[in-house]
Amino acid sequence: MAAATTETTFSAEEYFATQPPPPSLEHDIGEVRDFISRQVKEGRNVVLVTSGGTTVPLELNVVRFLDNFSAGTRGATSAEYFLKAGYAVIFMHRQFSLQPYSRHYSHSTNPFLDFLEIESRSGTSSPPEICVTHNMRQDLLEVLTAYKSVHAAGTLHTMTFVTVNDYLWLLRAVSQELCVLGKKSMYYLAAAVSDFFLPRQKMSEHKIQSGKGSLHIEMDQVPKILKPMVHEWTKGEAFIVSFKLETDEQLLIPKARAALERYGHQVVIGNDLHRRKFEVVFVSRAQRPLPSTDLDDQSPGTFAEMWLRIPVLATPNPVTHQVKEIEEDIIAELVRRHSRWINEVYN
Amino acid sequence: MAAATTETTFSAEEYFATQPPPPSLEHDIGEVRDFISRQVKEGRNVVLVTSGGTTVPLELNVVRFLDNFSAGTRGATSAEYFLKAGYAVIFMHRQFSLQPYSRHYSHSTNPFLDFLEIESRSGTSSPPEICVTHNMRQDLLEVLTAYKSVHAAGTLHTMTFVTVNDYLWLLRAVSQELCVLGKKSMYYLAAAVSDFFLPRQKMSEHKIQSGKGSLHIEMDQVPKILKPMVHEWTKGEAFIVSFKLETDEQLLIPKARAALERYGHQVVIGNDLHRRKFEVVFVSRAQRPLPSTDLDDQSPGTFAEMWLRIPVLATPNPVTHQVKEIEEDIIAELVRRHSRWINEVYN
Repeated sequence: MAAATTETTFSAEEYFATQPPPPSLEHDIGEVRDFISRQVKEGRNVVLVTSGGTTVPLELNVVRFLDNFSAGTRGATSAEYFLKAGYAVIFMHRQFSLQPYSRHYSHSTNPFLDFLEIESRSGTSSPPEICVTHNMRQDLLEVLTAYKSVHAAGTLHTMTFVTVNDYLWLLRAVSQELCVLGKKSMYYLAAAVSDFFLPRQKMSEHKIQSGKGSLHIEMDQVPKILKPMVHEWTKGEAFIVSFKLETDEQLLIPKARAALERYGHQVVIGNDLHRRKFEVVFVSRAQRPLPSTDLDDQSPGTFAEMWLRIPVLATPNPVTHQVKEIEEDIIAELVRRHSRWINEVYN
Repeated sequence: MAAATTETTFSAEEYFATQPPPPSLEHDIGEVRDFISRQVKEGRNVVLVTSGGTTVPLELNVVRFLDNFSAGTRGATSAEYFLKAGYAVIFMHRQFSLQPYSRHYSHSTNPFLDFLEIESRSGTSSPPEICVTHNMRQDLLEVLTAYKSVHAAGTLHTMTFVTVNDYLWLLRAVSQELCVLGKKSMYYLAAAVSDFFLPRQKMSEHKIQSGKGSLHIEMDQVPKILKPMVHEWTKGEAFIVSFKLETDEQLLIPKARAALERYGHQVVIGNDLHRRKFEVVFVSRAQRPLPSTDLDDQSPGTFAEMWLRIPVLATPNPVTHQVKEIEEDIIAELVRRHSRWINEVYN
């Protein structure tokens, strides 16, 4: 049986005071710092995209862990559209989750060995050549061209996390580095972060032995880090977008509004687990009274909701067969809002 | 806190009577049946390789799940060596875990977009060509050649699972199909299967809500299916190899012996989480008294242990930089033992 019950929780401060940082933190942050200072020099906006699920190890020598469902499709796809829009992207993702560009050929989707062919060159002693099958050539050429040009421009920086502890430490440290960009920084927090964790002090050292009956796990709540992130780490200047994934549609908008009220950031993108590829809702605070026809729905005076929808196609393979990806529209709308946010300051 | 406490458990029979089969079971098994009957006609031995970790969903609309650590390296690597040894392989693996051949270029290891180049053909109006970088060409050609020849021979059949429930239903159904092969079937159970599960009847329908304190999870024990597998599903004829992964070295051999006693199968391969790429131990029942110099260690009269070790290299990248993979030796030893097992019957 899984259930949530009442108990006291860690504050962000208590969390970082009691849980150990990942060993590679300093090294990772040194690289981010270099990346950011190059983008500052070159005048780019920078977005931190988080992507994939976090784990909660149950043992110090990790065999078992709690995980959150996420292949990283939203984050990897969005990163491509941010890059296309001229942003520099820090792509902070779960190890082995999908990545921009390579996502088109990952895992079981278009396994790349299937579109390579061996062509022996008859009449010569040269070794056989490896070719790309004809039907894949055009697609691959487009993806490869975008990939190479992003690498040449140096606008994509990738870093990985596995556990929710890695994630929290990295997020705080990257936020502090991104401060130098002020309003020109955006956060696109698409990672599926665990709400619960097992404090280091409560973990068992070795693999939990079975054979003795049922397993009981009791976890503490992960601190709500959006509040210190908005008000302290980023000094209230960054444009921060968080996500709310629900399976019960009824909860989507109330929970998104509650998050905005509690944390004071700019946008919550709400999505239902089963319709997330075709439909999302932007929830934000209404800036001024708007005629009600401008928006699909608007709560009186406080919140604005804007739905983005794309058609659900007959062959809904999100990577190859879908003509349009909803992330294209999501990023276009965010770039527009971020630009307004930046101009509100500089004007 | 995670701890195991005493409670009654499901028998395999009770498990299958109360937990629903995966929706694609019939379709998947139809394909396996066709594959097996082709191998029977062509006279091949068939091995079922299971690979990757199973999940335990905590919710019916899955957001959170318990997982077992496994990228699927052992299974994917072993499958290649079985194919090389002339076996037909049913590769039953966790969705998105590593697969034979493509494993060499998966995830962050050798991302394949990095070794493709765009070569524009000057002086012509033809579109640019995609080439493989020079330093990767030889390696890729070898992998690709093996991959293409296995596909041409039709000796590899792949099927996927996600949850421990998928895994258990598939394993039982495949075992029943493999019966027709008698002694010529082998089971190489390298998947990291959860010891615990959450019965369908106890799962919450929607995402467990946070914000209300700590998380308590109480799980039941997964039934020990090796026993019915050995004695009922495979009628005692198949050659069955299971794995024991521990982080506490002291437990390895006692637990491997206990498993052999309890289930009555042929081999347990024991491995320590941190040394599994370089060292494993084969534990089996001693068939006859052997001079003690033949084996590293042997318990009096009952069990035989045989250690396999390969050197730990300075650059221990298991896929690309390691000259030797321990799976090569593991499979060679198993093929030898399986052949003896087959001949004991036919002679």
